[in-house]
Amino acid sequence: MTPLLTTTTTNPMNSDEFRRQGHMLIDFIADYHSNIEQYPVLSRVKPGYLRQLLPPSAPYEAEPIEEIMKDIQSHIIPGITHWQHPSYFAYFPCSSSTAGILGELLAAGFGVVGFNWEASPAATELETIVMDWFGEMLSLPKPYLFSGDGGGVIMGTTCEAFIVMLVAARDQKLAEIGKDKIGKLVVYCSDQTHCALQKAAKVVGIRPGNVRAVATTRAASFALSPDSLESAVLADVEMGWVPLFLCATIGTTSTTAVDPLQPLCQVAKQHGMWVHVDAAYGGSACICPEFRHVIDGVEGADSFSLNAHKWFFTTLDCCCLWVKNPDALKRSLSTNPEYLRNQASDSGGVIDYKDWQLTLSRRFRSLKLWMVLRSYGVANLRSFLRGHVAMAKAFEKLVAGDDRFEVVVPRRFAMVCFRMTRTSEGSGSDDDGGDEGANNLMNKKLLERVNGSGRVFMTHALVGGIYLLRFAVGSTLTEPEHVMEAWKVIQEHADAIQGDYIHLY
Amino acid sequence: MTPLLTTTTTNPMNSDEFRRQGHMLIDFIADYHSNIEQYPVLSRVKPGYLRQLLPPSAPYEAEPIEEIMKDIQSHIIPGITHWQHPSYFAYFPCSSSTAGILGELLAAGFGVVGFNWEASPAATELETIVMDWFGEMLSLPKPYLFSGDGGGVIMGTTCEAFIVMLVAARDQKLAEIGKDKIGKLVVYCSDQTHCALQKAAKVVGIRPGNVRAVATTRAASFALSPDSLESAVLADVEMGWVPLFLCATIGTTSTTAVDPLQPLCQVAKQHGMWVHVDAAYGGSACICPEFRHVIDGVEGADSFSLNAHKWFFTTLDCCCLWVKNPDALKRSLSTNPEYLRNQASDSGGVIDYKDWQLTLSRRFRSLKLWMVLRSYGVANLRSFLRGHVAMAKAFEKLVAGDDRFEVVVPRRFAMVCFRMTRTSEGSGSDDDGGDEGANNLMNKKLLERVNGSGRVFMTHALVGGIYLLRFAVGSTLTEPEHVMEAWKVIQEHADAIQGDYIHLY
Repeated sequence: MTPLLTTTTTNPMNSDEFRRQGHMLIDFIADYHSNIEQYPVLSRVKPGYLRQLLPPSAPYEAEPIEEIMKDIQSHIIPGITHWQHPSYFAYFPCSSSTAGILGELLAAGFGVVGFNWEASPAATELETIVMDWFGEMLSLPKPYLFSGDGGGVIMGTTCEAFIVMLVAARDQKLAEIGKDKIGKLVVYCSDQTHCALQKAAKVVGIRPGNVRAVATTRAASFALSPDSLESAVLADVEMGWVPLFLCATIGTTSTTAVDPLQPLCQVAKQHGMWVHVDAAYGGSACICPEFRHVIDGVEGADSFSLNAHKWFFTTLDCCCLWVKNPDALKRSLSTNPEYLRNQASDSGGVIDYKDWQLTLSRRFRSLKLWMVLRSYGVANLRSFLRGHVAMAKAFEKLVAGDDRFEVVVPRRFAMVCFRMTRTSEGSGSDDDGGDEGANNLMNKKLLERVNGSGRVFMTHALVGGIYLLRFAVGSTLTEPEHVMEAWKVIQEHADAIQGDYIHLY
Repeated sequence: MTPLLTTTTTNPMNSDEFRRQGHMLIDFIADYHSNIEQYPVLSRVKPGYLRQLLPPSAPYEAEPIEEIMKDIQSHIIPGITHWQHPSYFAYFPCSSSTAGILGELLAAGFGVVGFNWEASPAATELETIVMDWFGEMLSLPKPYLFSGDGGGVIMGTTCEAFIVMLVAARDQKLAEIGKDKIGKLVVYCSDQTHCALQKAAKVVGIRPGNVRAVATTRAASFALSPDSLESAVLADVEMGWVPLFLCATIGTTSTTAVDPLQPLCQVAKQHGMWVHVDAAYGGSACICPEFRHVIDGVEGADSFSLNAHKWFFTTLDCCCLWVKNPDALKRSLSTNPEYLRNQASDSGGVIDYKDWQLTLSRRFRSLKLWMVLRSYGVANLRSFLRGHVAMAKAFEKLVAGDDRFEVVVPRRFAMVCFRMTRTSEGSGSDDDGGDEGANNLMNKKLLERVNGSGRVFMTHALVGGIYLLRFAVGSTLTEPEHVMEAWKVIQEHADAIQGDYIHLY
């Protein structure tokens, strides 16, 4: 045969070159984490900044790694909003760790595609094992585990879990009531449920008008009320709609509200609904016995998911989903083309995860979760989460001690929902009435200033007409001094805004 | 504040520890790649092997990385089917590279979640830039690029791209014909289209009976015939069904067949269908001018995707999707909850990729594609692909030169479809008739033996009643000697089987 590589003599997976560049990258990332506090948390670039810096076309000839790293430092890093910054308190964290990052690296190094058992038995088997380990740590009821009759699977995000659960529930229901009745199906959630549910319902063909976002109240800390759910369901049933699915949330995005599972499941089950528990953020806390009560009643639901990349140190992406009845998934999602057939699958004695999820190809994600569980152990993982909660508690106390501010809803996990109030006497009760508009504007302004400082990044929510600031502790590098510093920054800008305020009103 | 970490004193993202463990992992992966030939390509473990080796629960205390690495070596590696092995010729490759692996590492190190522009401008902007670079390398028509009025997005897999395209097409069509007509919609493909399309159609609520897998023939090399498509569509229209979507494939899974885009688009467009081009495998080859003709006619389609993790060195996952009309995606997939609102998004002047895909959270995948493009350059990338094609060509010649074997369909890219034939005079024509059953069994047996040897891993397909062996060259480490060695192994087992065969018949 003729020589095949003409313009380079090095195979792109040559080990020596991998080693050389790999060590360089490890040092680069270690330095990035060491020096991360020198960057503004929220990127300050303007839209379109990068197209001006990069050439219009891919290079014809190879470029050395040194050149690429130089551009990463000078062109990419300024455009990064530093989610791993210790002063990042926005959205929910995407918590990382040495074990999580290196688990992802190792998975990339193996480069296996574990769609079925045979395609890499270790990828499938490790996933079943760590999902049982993790489920046990959360005290999930046995029927959710492989050691019961259920089981767990790792997906990318909760959005995928929603779609998969809805498809399984939909097909199960249509098999009962007739395949042409898709237009009759109704999905229930609260007005605090993550928007991904509405999107997932739309994707699977539920009519957008058939998602009932039941109203919550500040008095009930924005949790879904079983009575309100029941009223909504009864009204629908009377009109001939068919209740399909309830999504309950443990730790809503806006305020970390916790929907009461036990009574909600009772209502849902009376009407033959599939109940999914979205614990994307709050679920991880259940490894601490003092938090486990937030999922009391989960035994009455059908499926439960959390994002281990949110508050469990595994780096994006790692959504853990447990289901009581994997057959319902497999009935909807199995594919068995001849080109994927093999003895192990034909035997029926193995798990082919492709039939539990939307996609065929799947990364070896269990590796990073396994490395996180082993590298830190249950004791440290609890301690990390408790550390975040303690910092949030301390921040809550600081807010409560400053009469220009109020805590809007009681803190449940490691996020504090707060705001400035217009007058120092402001009670923050539901009766603020006409002042809310002015309050909201003031808090919006405060947030813009604080984020603009580059020293802190927070985000906001609007609930019950109240614009509130969300201070979500959970970035792995965050230590108590960063919380203190954030509070100082917030206070400084509050002072400045109060000055403006006196001018304006 | 009180000390927060009780059982450990080290932050799980401590840079020194990251550096120490990171260098260890880089060396581990480099060694794995250096020594990969010592492992059997196809794992030999038995179902359930790993549960016997690992403890039943997660550890309470932290374990050192050295212990974990020991277990990876002794417990995980034996359960891996080595997709990066140079003698891996199964399914399609999942081609890796130093740049791909390290790009994934760097993305994990940054740990950003680029769901919208503000959440990390560089993640969004780099994606738009590399998708234009790559699109230009493929000579995609301008309307698919941001520099035209279209644009590209990176997803995990083609399965997600299928769902997204179907949802966009479905909603567009239902807006025309009425939202209750979902049961009328029909999706077209060939009997060679990847099974993920049927699954995606089911997910979005298309009735399973409404996916028309139009029959192909060996005479037409299993490509979808425009005439057959037209007949199917006309029959459906006459029955009152509504044509929605056509999926054409460039490089089918079973035999790398190429559907003729130009005439297929003509038929589809006459009936108002969305045309998606699934070039998951074959698309990459279009960076070589001599292969570009396989997507001639793509200008008539609506969307085009390929998996850069298949045959473009970026490691799983990296599905590149280009669309002419991103607004169709955004109309179906946008979500705008208050907690995600920000000035940049409100301005309308930025791209929020969450509205182009199923999931909200997304990894910084463009980083690895950018690093691949720059580290190797267009010249080397062409040369790598040509090297694979040359090796497949050489293998094809070896097969054709041995009269116990036949090439079942002409090779198009870097995969050879072949089989043993029962008699040395076997012509392999469509008229083999009654012998096919025996031939198929013989080839099945050959495949089992070859894969059981551990020295080669291939997979099979069944097309037009013919069980064929797929020899897919594309693993990055594969060199001509591995192809020669594979042929030797195949011949040895063919000899042995011919011995058995004489016994049996």
